[in-house]
Amino acid sequence: MKRNRYLDKKTLEEARRVFFSRVAPFIETFRRERTHHVSVEDALHRITAEPIFARMSCPHYHAAAMDGLAVQADVTFGARESHPKRLGIGTDAHPVDTGNPLPHGTNAVIMIEDVYFVDDKTVEIEKAAYPWEHVRPVGEDLVVGEMILPENHLIRPYDMGSLLAGGVWTLSVRAKPRITVIPTGSELVEPGSFLKEGNIVNFNSTVLKGLITEDGADFVGSPILKDIYGTLQSGLLSALASSDVVLVIAGSSAGSHDFTATLLDDTGEVLVHGVTIMPGKPTILGIVQGKPVIGIPGYPVSAIVAYEQFVRPLISALLSTKEPQRKKVDAVPATNIPSKLGNEEFLRVRLGKVGPPMIATPLSRGSGLITSLSRADGIIRIPRLSEGLMEGEHVQAELLREEEAIENSIIMIGSHDLILDLLATQLNRRSPVFSLSSTHVGSMGGLLALQKGRAHLAGSHLFDPETGQYNVPYVKRILKGMKIHLVQLVHRQQGLILASGNPKRIKDVQDLTREGTVFINRQKGSGTRMLFDHLLQKHGLKPETIQGYEREEFTHMAVAVAVLSGSADAGVGIYAAAKALDLAFVPITMERYDLVIPGTFFHDEKIQTLLDTIRSEEFRQSVEHLGGYDVSGMGEPLPLR
Amino acid sequence: MKRNRYLDKKTLEEARRVFFSRVAPFIETFRRERTHHVSVEDALHRITAEPIFARMSCPHYHAAAMDGLAVQADVTFGARESHPKRLGIGTDAHPVDTGNPLPHGTNAVIMIEDVYFVDDKTVEIEKAAYPWEHVRPVGEDLVVGEMILPENHLIRPYDMGSLLAGGVWTLSVRAKPRITVIPTGSELVEPGSFLKEGNIVNFNSTVLKGLITEDGADFVGSPILKDIYGTLQSGLLSALASSDVVLVIAGSSAGSHDFTATLLDDTGEVLVHGVTIMPGKPTILGIVQGKPVIGIPGYPVSAIVAYEQFVRPLISALLSTKEPQRKKVDAVPATNIPSKLGNEEFLRVRLGKVGPPMIATPLSRGSGLITSLSRADGIIRIPRLSEGLMEGEHVQAELLREEEAIENSIIMIGSHDLILDLLATQLNRRSPVFSLSSTHVGSMGGLLALQKGRAHLAGSHLFDPETGQYNVPYVKRILKGMKIHLVQLVHRQQGLILASGNPKRIKDVQDLTREGTVFINRQKGSGTRMLFDHLLQKHGLKPETIQGYEREEFTHMAVAVAVLSGSADAGVGIYAAAKALDLAFVPITMERYDLVIPGTFFHDEKIQTLLDTIRSEEFRQSVEHLGGYDVSGMGEPLPLR
Repeated sequence: MKRNRYLDKKTLEEARRVFFSRVAPFIETFRRERTHHVSVEDALHRITAEPIFARMSCPHYHAAAMDGLAVQADVTFGARESHPKRLGIGTDAHPVDTGNPLPHGTNAVIMIEDVYFVDDKTVEIEKAAYPWEHVRPVGEDLVVGEMILPENHLIRPYDMGSLLAGGVWTLSVRAKPRITVIPTGSELVEPGSFLKEGNIVNFNSTVLKGLITEDGADFVGSPILKDIYGTLQSGLLSALASSDVVLVIAGSSAGSHDFTATLLDDTGEVLVHGVTIMPGKPTILGIVQGKPVIGIPGYPVSAIVAYEQFVRPLISALLSTKEPQRKKVDAVPATNIPSKLGNEEFLRVRLGKVGPPMIATPLSRGSGLITSLSRADGIIRIPRLSEGLMEGEHVQAELLREEEAIENSIIMIGSHDLILDLLATQLNRRSPVFSLSSTHVGSMGGLLALQKGRAHLAGSHLFDPETGQYNVPYVKRILKGMKIHLVQLVHRQQGLILASGNPKRIKDVQDLTREGTVFINRQKGSGTRMLFDHLLQKHGLKPETIQGYEREEFTHMAVAVAVLSGSADAGVGIYAAAKALDLAFVPITMERYDLVIPGTFFHDEKIQTLLDTIRSEEFRQSVEHLGGYDVSGMGEPLPLR
Repeated sequence: MKRNRYLDKKTLEEARRVFFSRVAPFIETFRRERTHHVSVEDALHRITAEPIFARMSCPHYHAAAMDGLAVQADVTFGARESHPKRLGIGTDAHPVDTGNPLPHGTNAVIMIEDVYFVDDKTVEIEKAAYPWEHVRPVGEDLVVGEMILPENHLIRPYDMGSLLAGGVWTLSVRAKPRITVIPTGSELVEPGSFLKEGNIVNFNSTVLKGLITEDGADFVGSPILKDIYGTLQSGLLSALASSDVVLVIAGSSAGSHDFTATLLDDTGEVLVHGVTIMPGKPTILGIVQGKPVIGIPGYPVSAIVAYEQFVRPLISALLSTKEPQRKKVDAVPATNIPSKLGNEEFLRVRLGKVGPPMIATPLSRGSGLITSLSRADGIIRIPRLSEGLMEGEHVQAELLREEEAIENSIIMIGSHDLILDLLATQLNRRSPVFSLSSTHVGSMGGLLALQKGRAHLAGSHLFDPETGQYNVPYVKRILKGMKIHLVQLVHRQQGLILASGNPKRIKDVQDLTREGTVFINRQKGSGTRMLFDHLLQKHGLKPETIQGYEREEFTHMAVAVAVLSGSADAGVGIYAAAKALDLAFVPITMERYDLVIPGTFFHDEKIQTLLDTIRSEEFRQSVEHLGGYDVSGMGEPLPLR
């Protein structure tokens, strides 16, 4: 069980400097030698390997720019309304259509509209033509020898037109670097396989294929290699023989990282082993047979960060293009975000435009969580020598989605319900520009977010035992002084979610105190947690008597999954969650879930579109179909008293 | 010669409204019925046809998040530094690697670094584990049933990872609409053909292929169809049988436009014939067999505008995505730009960041000039009811290039020289972020542009007969009060450019007055024009005695092409232009061409990089290679006195 540590971790800047200075000769040679000819038709999004000059002028002859009669301008001189001039067809004047070459000896075109036909052989004109009038002279668009495109230019559709206009049919473009991706790890299986416990789907190859393709290089796949030194070695060597760059994705186990480093050390040279970035720390940068070989960490977010920091700029250098930069915007974190000193963190955030500055809400930070990237709107880089970000501090966020899409996103913070996914889908179907982004921090967290101006609306189902009311007393207290609209979303069934068939025969909250019964709780501040605490109090039960009371999940589905996986026997949640996983359910209460909307946003088009969606027949039917919901009164305003 | 006119031209808004309301049922049906399944690996940049939910949780088992020992947390309780606790390997504690499933009955992992091995069967720990410590519980990333992607979502590489993490191997995506492009016109030939006078290369098909591909649809090509009604009709009907949308590109002659309208009228319905946009007026919008058929004008810029205004939004609607919007920036026109009342003009402009607002310089406006698009940085839309733009007025420009690239572009306005293309190429090779954008308005125009703050530098070769100096007197007068750096670019040979073999035996300026000798002039304000006027004066010749004196070209190459094509017998220009086209040349004078750089920009990194490029050995050699240049002193500062 001996483990190598990253003895010589480098900062991102150092690592890039060391790596790129060592692979510079390889890049230089690639640029010089690896170009090829493509037809213009196949040149879309390729990069020119040299400046491209026009081989012919466009037009390549003097062309009529109008339908009419081509003439030598001299013969028309003197014509005017009071003194029309007659011209002989076929002698002085020659019929031409737009694009026709000017007949020899002519240098102007009279528009057909300005011609009066006297007879078959004669026309009359009332205005003189000036030389070269209505003519597209040779080279009007492009002159032979003129540069059409500079070197290192990304070819767009318009450019393809200009190339053909200049008589260029084929051109020299930069070769696409071939990048082989080798997934390693005995626990890996390909997508589509039956998954046993301990199996991990190799999704890094697919993600890297997508990124490599987007960046303009050629992805070369490889089968999964087992964690066996000889296998890895022959895999690496055969990949090097047929590609320009090799990425070895370590398996998830630490053992295989070490294999990659040893392998690079044996066959070539390890330049960097370990980078002070998070995720992405176990990145290995090496050079084997003069070619770059990169050890990509196995956790998906680490793999992507390593790719984007080292492989993407390498591809740009090989293609001689500028490294693509994400747009940056000013944003303020919604909370304090501590970060580990000594590591540069790539924090994934949701962004929302509620007030003038964008609000950044951190997503989960584990490097194993791919959804933290697919759900992110942006990335905030927390510098290596910072201990984190302060709430409200102005920072830069790199955008992963278009700014306009973020601005058209409705930010909902608060309680979780399964119908929010349905609502998001149907809102977007109704109006493709709008989207609903919901973050689940519990009802109370939602109201606090509104108080701080961090959300457009909150979802809440807070029961007040004293008044027997939902939400109203809490809104009045927490959002005191703000104009608030309360809109009913839905009534829903809350109860105990239990293992299928209810093997422990749990019938009510009291049964949860039985020896050997493990509970899974919801987080503090969630309406469901408050409901549960209220139930305990009503039954005179102490939290300490419930095993698992302190373990918290953030959504109804997460509670249901804990029960399904056997890590808990019971939890409190909505019927729809139990039904989705085929679990047993004991109803406790029907509760009201409302939307809390500040007056500032209520009349906004996106909020009104959301409310229209909620009131639609389509939405009503799909909610009813889930089960456990009472859909009467959906979307109706509620009095705040 | 009867011609139909566009009887019923519609505004862009009207045309779009009419067209999209009539094709709405087609779009509706396409969206509902035309979806198909692809594997996640092939899903990059496809659009989801339904919301996608996780089929399994990720992780799908409780997984060790660290290498170490899996334990039931209870057995570790009480361990502390002063009271270490011993655990039996294989009984209390089970070795696990990151990613391994937790053995049954365990719920925490102790990191290997925190374990002391007593012997083969026993370890000691000094700290208790808490339940679920260092464990990735089932569903940490994704919970079964959770929505991974909404409907109508463009799939990015990260999303592919999330799909596979959620056990989704294939998914339903929107079909790509098949769009057949039919080029028509008896004068058209395919790229690569030998071109006779009157032949026009069909480059619209290639440009449209690029645009259609970028917009996410499938391009279907068609051979060029002759302007014969029956041929066009059978071409259209067979295209409709195998595609969703048909674009008929009219030939350049007006006759074929009418054919398209008649054809649509006979086989289906013409919805719009003529739109008040420029370029793009002769667009035809129709519907045949329930499918959209669009008559695209033949001139390349018209074709692109028609495509972008009608076909692009149609593709977006079929794919259920938002129509892509170009980024808009604030810009001010460099000159007054009159525009025709009644037409919305799509004006192509170069953009440059010299001072705070972007400066927009109009490019040529003809709809036949494809380079006006490939060279443009942006498009300014001049409203239908406007008579044009005022110099300095704030307007919106839609960007065709990245804003950063525009900001890193050196704006050079002034005299034309062939070595500017070389300079642009070598500057970009030296530093890929910088580019050189040069506009040719003559030496005088360049100095005036500097005066108005419209350029970073100007190229000038203005000879002052009184002092015998180049540039200095003009700079002192026109740029009075500004700090200016004058840098020598090159000495170059000016002379008479003559037809190959000099058939008219022209030996000097006086020979230009001979009967039957046609001259081609340069524009007023250009240094070459001033040189010519100076020569005329010196020889006591009057402009009226020179046939063609009033016809102006803007560049040396354009003059050379006029001579090559026979539209003129002689012009004044540099040796390199004559040499490029193998024309005869009679030297007149060696003149100095300088760069005029205001002090405000002189120390800017991009200007300094430009000067370094000029002083480089590589640049010197390539200029010398052109011929007609004296490269001594290139890049040297010149005194302003």
